[in-house]
Amino acid sequence: MKKISHKPDDSSLDLVAGNGLLNRRALLGRGIAVAGAGMGMGLTTAGAEPLKDDEWSTYQGTTIQGHGVRSKYFDKTTRILSNPNGEPRTQHARTPHEKLHGSITPNHLHFTIIHNGIPDIDPAQHKMVIHGMVRQPLMFTLEKLMRYPMTTRQTFIECGGNSSPMFSSEPVQATLQHLHGLVSNAEWTGVLLSTLLEEAGVDPKAKWMLVEGADTAALTRSVPLTKAWDDAIVVLYQNGEPLMAEQGYPMRLLLPGWEGNMNIKYVRRIKITDQPAMSFYEARNYSPILPNGKAFKFYFVNEVKSFITHPSYGMKINGPGYYDVSGIAYSGSGTIKRVMVSADGGKSWADAAIQANAQDKSFTRFHIPWRWDGSPAVLTSRAVDDGGNIQPLRADFVRERGQTEKPVTNTQAFYSQHYNSLTSWAVDSKGEIKHVYV
Amino acid sequence: MKKISHKPDDSSLDLVAGNGLLNRRALLGRGIAVAGAGMGMGLTTAGAEPLKDDEWSTYQGTTIQGHGVRSKYFDKTTRILSNPNGEPRTQHARTPHEKLHGSITPNHLHFTIIHNGIPDIDPAQHKMVIHGMVRQPLMFTLEKLMRYPMTTRQTFIECGGNSSPMFSSEPVQATLQHLHGLVSNAEWTGVLLSTLLEEAGVDPKAKWMLVEGADTAALTRSVPLTKAWDDAIVVLYQNGEPLMAEQGYPMRLLLPGWEGNMNIKYVRRIKITDQPAMSFYEARNYSPILPNGKAFKFYFVNEVKSFITHPSYGMKINGPGYYDVSGIAYSGSGTIKRVMVSADGGKSWADAAIQANAQDKSFTRFHIPWRWDGSPAVLTSRAVDDGGNIQPLRADFVRERGQTEKPVTNTQAFYSQHYNSLTSWAVDSKGEIKHVYV
Repeated sequence: MKKISHKPDDSSLDLVAGNGLLNRRALLGRGIAVAGAGMGMGLTTAGAEPLKDDEWSTYQGTTIQGHGVRSKYFDKTTRILSNPNGEPRTQHARTPHEKLHGSITPNHLHFTIIHNGIPDIDPAQHKMVIHGMVRQPLMFTLEKLMRYPMTTRQTFIECGGNSSPMFSSEPVQATLQHLHGLVSNAEWTGVLLSTLLEEAGVDPKAKWMLVEGADTAALTRSVPLTKAWDDAIVVLYQNGEPLMAEQGYPMRLLLPGWEGNMNIKYVRRIKITDQPAMSFYEARNYSPILPNGKAFKFYFVNEVKSFITHPSYGMKINGPGYYDVSGIAYSGSGTIKRVMVSADGGKSWADAAIQANAQDKSFTRFHIPWRWDGSPAVLTSRAVDDGGNIQPLRADFVRERGQTEKPVTNTQAFYSQHYNSLTSWAVDSKGEIKHVYV
Repeated sequence: MKKISHKPDDSSLDLVAGNGLLNRRALLGRGIAVAGAGMGMGLTTAGAEPLKDDEWSTYQGTTIQGHGVRSKYFDKTTRILSNPNGEPRTQHARTPHEKLHGSITPNHLHFTIIHNGIPDIDPAQHKMVIHGMVRQPLMFTLEKLMRYPMTTRQTFIECGGNSSPMFSSEPVQATLQHLHGLVSNAEWTGVLLSTLLEEAGVDPKAKWMLVEGADTAALTRSVPLTKAWDDAIVVLYQNGEPLMAEQGYPMRLLLPGWEGNMNIKYVRRIKITDQPAMSFYEARNYSPILPNGKAFKFYFVNEVKSFITHPSYGMKINGPGYYDVSGIAYSGSGTIKRVMVSADGGKSWADAAIQANAQDKSFTRFHIPWRWDGSPAVLTSRAVDDGGNIQPLRADFVRERGQTEKPVTNTQAFYSQHYNSLTSWAVDSKGEIKHVYV
């Protein structure tokens, strides 16, 4: 492990791991030793007052619109699209995590995957049916569904194929949006599926449900009833407003923590059954193939995972000094309890500060202060959830799940799924950042 | 109090207050007595399968865009604007709470008030200074500010003049957007002001700070330093993305729970002082006048408050049966602990279910199941926070704070502020809803 340099003027800093990682409480709030004349964060001090007016402070600004607008300096930030011309096949749009912060993904930047275009559904005409092995089949319009008690919770949704480039044996040099853009986090509001199943009266012999969407692809997946009774929700609202058109408007099945493809958009049918249907997406796709040639029959949960967003590939660190190292952690099986960060490629680790009110199966923002001395460093993070699940090291993950010789394409991505190992960034002496494996 | 009707088929329901309010856990999850053949929620049962395809299930849908799009059925929902042509004076845009659900306000529908247009600030040029009674004046660019440890939290922002129509002696017949549209809730990310003040080194004799924006109006307010040390944040992100242009891009002072006008947008200067500056907005405006002619010198906190959003004015209840009564509660001095709902105009009350993970100084969604028997009813809500603060009854509020003979206009609104008493909805036998006082 690299020797930690203790200069006279930082003796009161709480160095907690190699290459300059500081105690997560350093610089947070009052009574911090780093504060003090001259030293501080090494940032520019103010000159004489008063400030001179910038040009924009000298004339009337633009007029408020019915929908709030973004600054032109950010508004050009959009999602990367696959198949941008909308040929009749699958399209992807990826969340630009490197441009965002906090834990909510704004609705216009939530990832989406659509298999045959976004259906233009009239909410007054759409119906959802619960039938099959039930005492009483039920049909719901949107208006009737809204008469049931609703619940509000945050959760992430992640495509089973998110992070497929991470299966490449050589690290792909690309932004977070390319590497991990198929996961997003939102607040969802809707009716617990258990409330509806209770009314329908489920046959005790039933074990599964077949869930079907009203899109042209009629996307269909089998879901174990245990998940339906646990925390499945028929959601109607996303971050406060009705679901985005591409997220399943007017209603979607939400399965917190389970792979995105099972969270059926435009849900129109839930058929209670005693066995899985082995539909296309559960039989061919989303069955990760292992190095020994076998494949998982079902692989539903998105396991504990994290990645550093600031700094990350595509950014440049502007000289030695203090920085906020921050990222996102989440787990499909619980609440994030701990995130460890390393600045020396995993030789030593320190606990990051995690967001207060970390929520079950939701993005949890973490931060740790870092004093970069200008020499090469490797930043990485490793998360732990409240079930004790820990993000696997890369060598262990690859041994079990395999890797590919060249960067994974969208087609191959079907076979390289549920990556939840580390993501690591090498900072060189110029402050430039590369993607590396540790 | 009205006699509660116990029909044979609802004997197992947990009636908890007059006019059909049910236990907040009724209908939630499994093992609920209401479920059962035939009775259920009294909603439509399903006919024969299979479903016939709706038209939109039969052709390829629209193509994904870089920014996600809303369904055309919701996209026309926008905020009410005052001064929509942008004459050189104040503009307001109000949140349509009656169209939203959950607790997050999506960024494009967050309320805003702008006094001389939205400035078009170049984030690479903007600077913020901390000076005055400090050991070391500091100047921050956006890039440098982002090197400090950040924090993420939800909080509401409410204009001190929100709900001013509620001061009218006769209830104004208008939607929630008109009545209470100047409050919204978001997740914010930024740097604790205490971290920056600690570095600047505040003179122990200092008691206030003068905070100034870079908009043309140079909006300026004095803020007690106690709030700066407590939970003030210089925020950079709103629901995950950089601040909306109209919310202060690239940086804003956030004072959780304190009146909106003090949450200075486009913040460019924080001057540490030993007394308030008595600027326009703290000396003339935002000084509520009392019935005895005296006025509050300062009135910062937005106190505990709630209102029912579903159902509310402008909606029509479609026949007797079960409904989800739901609304928003919040307190500028803490976390919502309890929300009581009445269906008989305050004669009897029942506890609503409140959102799990209720957060400090944040919107908290509440729900209670209600079985409407088709006769007139009056719905209202009353919230309590974890400090024991309780939303005042209207008679008590008016006795202390006064009322006006006719509906309050925007100009008069300066004198009718910080309304936090009840909002009540009368449901007539046709299911139509009027605004009433109880």
